[in-house]
Amino acid sequence: MESIKNRTTIRKYSNREVSDELLNRLIEEAERTPTMGNLQLYSVVVTRSEEGKKALAPAHFNQPMVTDASVVLTICADYRRTTIWAENRKGTPGYDNILSFMNAATDALLFTQTFCNLAEEEGLGTCFLGTTIYMPKMIIDTLKLPKLVMPVATITLGWPDEHPAKSDRLPLRSIIHQESYSDYTPEKIDDFYAEKESLEENKEFVRINNVETLAQVFTDIRYTKKDCEAMSIGFMDALKQQGFVK
Amino acid sequence: MESIKNRTTIRKYSNREVSDELLNRLIEEAERTPTMGNLQLYSVVVTRSEEGKKALAPAHFNQPMVTDASVVLTICADYRRTTIWAENRKGTPGYDNILSFMNAATDALLFTQTFCNLAEEEGLGTCFLGTTIYMPKMIIDTLKLPKLVMPVATITLGWPDEHPAKSDRLPLRSIIHQESYSDYTPEKIDDFYAEKESLEENKEFVRINNVETLAQVFTDIRYTKKDCEAMSIGFMDALKQQGFVK
Repeated sequence: MESIKNRTTIRKYSNREVSDELLNRLIEEAERTPTMGNLQLYSVVVTRSEEGKKALAPAHFNQPMVTDASVVLTICADYRRTTIWAENRKGTPGYDNILSFMNAATDALLFTQTFCNLAEEEGLGTCFLGTTIYMPKMIIDTLKLPKLVMPVATITLGWPDEHPAKSDRLPLRSIIHQESYSDYTPEKIDDFYAEKESLEENKEFVRINNVETLAQVFTDIRYTKKDCEAMSIGFMDALKQQGFVK
Repeated sequence: MESIKNRTTIRKYSNREVSDELLNRLIEEAERTPTMGNLQLYSVVVTRSEEGKKALAPAHFNQPMVTDASVVLTICADYRRTTIWAENRKGTPGYDNILSFMNAATDALLFTQTFCNLAEEEGLGTCFLGTTIYMPKMIIDTLKLPKLVMPVATITLGWPDEHPAKSDRLPLRSIIHQESYSDYTPEKIDDFYAEKESLEENKEFVRINNVETLAQVFTDIRYTKKDCEAMSIGFMDALKQQGFVK
C-alpha cells in the first residue's frame, strides 16, 4: 500500500471515465472490510449522470469536484436491508435507535476508507466530502433514501488531473497516548503545533483569512460554533426523519 | 493491497510482540488518511500492559482477544486537542455538539481503517471490536478520557496464530444503488441473501442458536431491540458526559 505514503486529496479530474468494471471490482474488494456481525450495514449510491451530480452539488456547497468527477459515491449507514431481511424471516428487528445508527455508520466509514485506499492504489484520485453530514436532508431527498438509511460519506472519484503538494500532519507523539490519556498542556500544544504553524502555506492561510492565528481560521471562519450548532440541529432532525432517533 | 482479498479477522495471536517501531511506523503512515480541515480529530491510546488489558476487557465482554493480543489500540474521536490549541491561540472553539462528534468520529474511523489495511499488508492480524460503543463509560473511566474525547474503535493487534476461513459477503448488486435508492423488495431480499443462507456454517449457526432463520440469530439473540435500546441510552449518556451533547 505504497500509495498512502504520498497520498493527497484530488479535486481536479481528467475527462477519462472510471469504468463500471473497475468501480465494481474496487467496491467488491472493499466489501472484505470487517463489518458488525457480518451484516454489512451500508449501501453505496453511485451517481454518474450530469443531472444527478448537479442535484447533489448544493448539499456540498457547490464544490466543483461534485460535478467534475467521473463518479460520485454516497455511502450510507443502512439498517434497512437488514431490517427488511429480518422482517421477511420471522425476526424482530429493533434498529430504530442511535446505537444502531452508530454501528451502521461505523461499518459504512470503514468500508469507505478501504475503498479509497484501493482506489488510490489503482491510481485514481479521491476527495472525501465531509459536507455529507452538514445538510443531510438535501442528500436524503435527492437520493430518495428511505427510513433507516442515512448518508455518512461522499467520495468524488476520477483520474487525477493535478499533483498537489502533500499536506502537513501533526507529529506522531501528539496523537498517541500510552496506557491512558495524557492531557494536553499549553507546553505540549506549543510543541505539537509548532511545525504546522511555521509552514509558509499555513501562514498564508492566516493572512488571506485576515486573522491572527491559524487556529482562528478554523474556529472563527471555517467551523464556527454558530454553524456547528445549527448543523447539529439539522443532523439530529435528519436522524429523526430517518428513524434512528425518536 | 493484495492482503484485502483474503482478509479475515484474527482473534488468536502468537507470543511474538508487535514492536513499538513497527506500531509507530504504521500509525504514522495511517496519519496520511484524509481528515476534516486537516485537524486530525482523533487520538490513539496504546495499551500494552497486562493490567491495562485486563482493565479494558470487561468493556469488551471479556473477549479473550483483549488480553491475548500484543497491543490493544483504542481510537478516540478527539476534539479536545484542537479545542485546547484554539483556546491557547485566541480562537473561540465551539465543538461541544453532536455534529462535531460525528466529524471527529469520522476522522477516527477512517484513520482506523487505513491503519488496519496497513497492518494487514504487514502480515499482522487485527480484530475490530464493535463493543467499544456498547459500554463506552467503562472505557472512558479506564483510559481517563477527558471531555471532548470519546472512544469509537478498538483494535486488537498481533501476529496471527490462526488461519480462519474467509467469511461470506453479500453480492455486489445488493449493496449498490444506481443514481437513487432502489428499495428492497421481498424478491430482492430472497435473491441477495440466498447464498448466505445456504452456507453450511450459517445453517450451523442457526442450529446452535436454536432458531428458525439466520436473521433471527441477529435480531432475537445477538443484537436484540432491548439491548440496542439500553445501549443507546448508555451511549447518549457517555456523549453527554464527554460534552458532545447537552
